[in-house]
Parts: sequence; structure tokens; C-alpha cells
Amino acid sequence: MNEVQNAVQNALISRRSVRSYKSDPLPRPVLEEILEAGTYAATGMNRQSPIMIAITNKDLRDRLSALNAKIMGSDRADPFYGAPVVVIVLAEKKYPTYLYDGSLVMGNLMLAAHAHGIASCWIHRAKEEFELPEGKAILAELGIEGEFEGIGHCILGYAEGDLPTARERKDGYVYWLE
Amino acid sequence: MNEVQNAVQNALISRRSVRSYKSDPLPRPVLEEILEAGTYAATGMNRQSPIMIAITNKDLRDRLSALNAKIMGSDRADPFYGAPVVVIVLAEKKYPTYLYDGSLVMGNLMLAAHAHGIASCWIHRAKEEFELPEGKAILAELGIEGEFEGIGHCILGYAEGDLPTARERKDGYVYWLE
Repeated sequence: MNEVQNAVQNALISRRSVRSYKSDPLPRPVLEEILEAGTYAATGMNRQSPIMIAITNKDLRDRLSALNAKIMGSDRADPFYGAPVVVIVLAEKKYPTYLYDGSLVMGNLMLAAHAHGIASCWIHRAKEEFELPEGKAILAELGIEGEFEGIGHCILGYAEGDLPTARERKDGYVYWLE
Repeated sequence: MNEVQNAVQNALISRRSVRSYKSDPLPRPVLEEILEAGTYAATGMNRQSPIMIAITNKDLRDRLSALNAKIMGSDRADPFYGAPVVVIVLAEKKYPTYLYDGSLVMGNLMLAAHAHGIASCWIHRAKEEFELPEGKAILAELGIEGEFEGIGHCILGYAEGDLPTARERKDGYVYWLE
């Protein structure tokens, strides 16, 4: 493998979902790179059905965390694990591939972050959040029209401690028909 | 940015969906690398709900193509655009995140392929295929049990001609709440 192949392959294999973060903010230029990578995810017919909302505002981040915890029915303090940045990915439901499209955006965000030395994790319940008035109010505030479904939160921050090691891959992940 | 950051960021931004392939086969070791990258996609609670079926057998690939065209209701000769390899990603429906999980596997496959100089495209209608007896027969032949839903086909091959250029990203892809 050449160096580019190595770098990308290693990034794909060494990315981990991180559940402990420092509160330090992230540099805006790096966040912009990560979000740009998100916009280049493949989408069905290149219709670019997703959108991303990057939240660095602490008050809003904390309110969203509380809402997420409430949906989870948990009293755990912070489903975002202390991460200072939350990127919400939503996708427009009128496109039949919206759910797949939004997922690929999430994947690009997590991988770009990892390449930049920033930890990430997919946090769910975005779907439920944006079915509630609190979620809809965020979209309205941003002037976003159309029927969007929450796909996921990509939480971002510097990892607290070492990256977790990968659990073994399951047996029977890959089959060949040659 | 350092070299690793550059390599990954560039790969994320320069990957394209390719719709014209040479029929040349792909080296098995490279395919194995690509599939390995797929197994390291994030999955909900790390439950690894997806599986991948790598099809290099021309007869089966052609039968699958014909089935896909039939579902599409099209007489187009080959929905796999001549690509010699088709990796089918399915995911087990008992896990609530299965659809997101399978999509992330697709994303890893497409990106790893690109890093290795191999073109790819997500081809849909895997869901419909594996609801049909023909699809179920493939799973049965492989001894795969459980309720799996088809997520997508990642077609792989050497691009015929140049990679397509990226269409412009839409306005309003990214919002900030700072």
C-alpha cells in the first residue's frame, strides 16, 4: 500500500466511538473541514438530502442534552458525554434515500474528525428530538423548511484519556461468493 | 494539516460515485482490505448488526443484476454498470440501529475502495431483492439465519474513463449555532 492508502485504511480501522470528552472547545477551521467532509458524502442521485447543524453554543448544547436524556428516559447527566460540539444531521424525508444519505454524512463526519485528532460518537434519538416542539423550534429559528427527520448527533471533542480498543469483529461478518 | 489529515480529508472529498466500469477483476488482497474497513464501521452499541456478501462470481453477479433491473422496472441492461464485483450489505432487523449501521458499512467500503484506486457506487433495491425468493435463496445457501434487510450494493471496479467531477454542494447544507 502507498501512503495515502495506508492513511485512509488506518483511519477507517482505528476510528473509535468515544464516550468521555474534555470540555475544551475545538478550533473553528478544523470544524469547518469536518463539516465540509460531511457535505461530500454520497447521496441518492446526488440530491444532497441531509443538512447539518453545528452547535457550539453551550446553553443550547446543554438543553439538547437534557432533551435527549428525557427521551431516553434516563437520569444520566449528559448523553453527549461532555463533548463541547454537537453536529446534528437531519435529512429531508421527501427523498426516498434520506435515511441512508444522512447516515453517510454521519460517517464522513466521524472519520474526518478522527483524521484531525478529534474524537466522536454517534448519539441517537435525533429522530425523536425533532418530532418534539423543542426540536422543531430550532429548525424554525434557522428558517429551515420542509419535513426533516433527525438522523443522528455527531458529538465532537478531544478524548479524555486513551481511545478505547476495538472489540473483536464478529464471526461471519464477511461472506464470499466467488 | 499534516499528511494523514490531508490524505483522509482529500479521500472524503474526492470520492465519486462511478457509473462506468472496466470488466477487469480486482485483486483479492485489495478486496479483503476494503471489506475489513467495512467491518470497522461504527454500529449501535457495537453490536455489528450488518453482514457483507462479496460477489465476484460472474454468473451470480449477472443474475443479481437482472433481478435488480426487474425490481427497477427497467430494461436497462445492467444496473451495476459493468462493475465486476458487488458487495451486498445487509443488516439484522432485530437491532434498532440496523439501517444506520448498514449505511456506515457502505460508507466505509466506498471510501476504502477509493483510497485503493477502485471506483464504487451505492446501488439500491437491495431491500427489495432480499424480500424475494431469489435473495432469500442466497442467504440460505450461505447458511445465514435471522431476519436481514438489504441495505445496499457497493459495486466495485476500475473506473472506465475519468472520475466524474463533483456537482456543487447545495446552499444551506451547514448551519451554525454558536
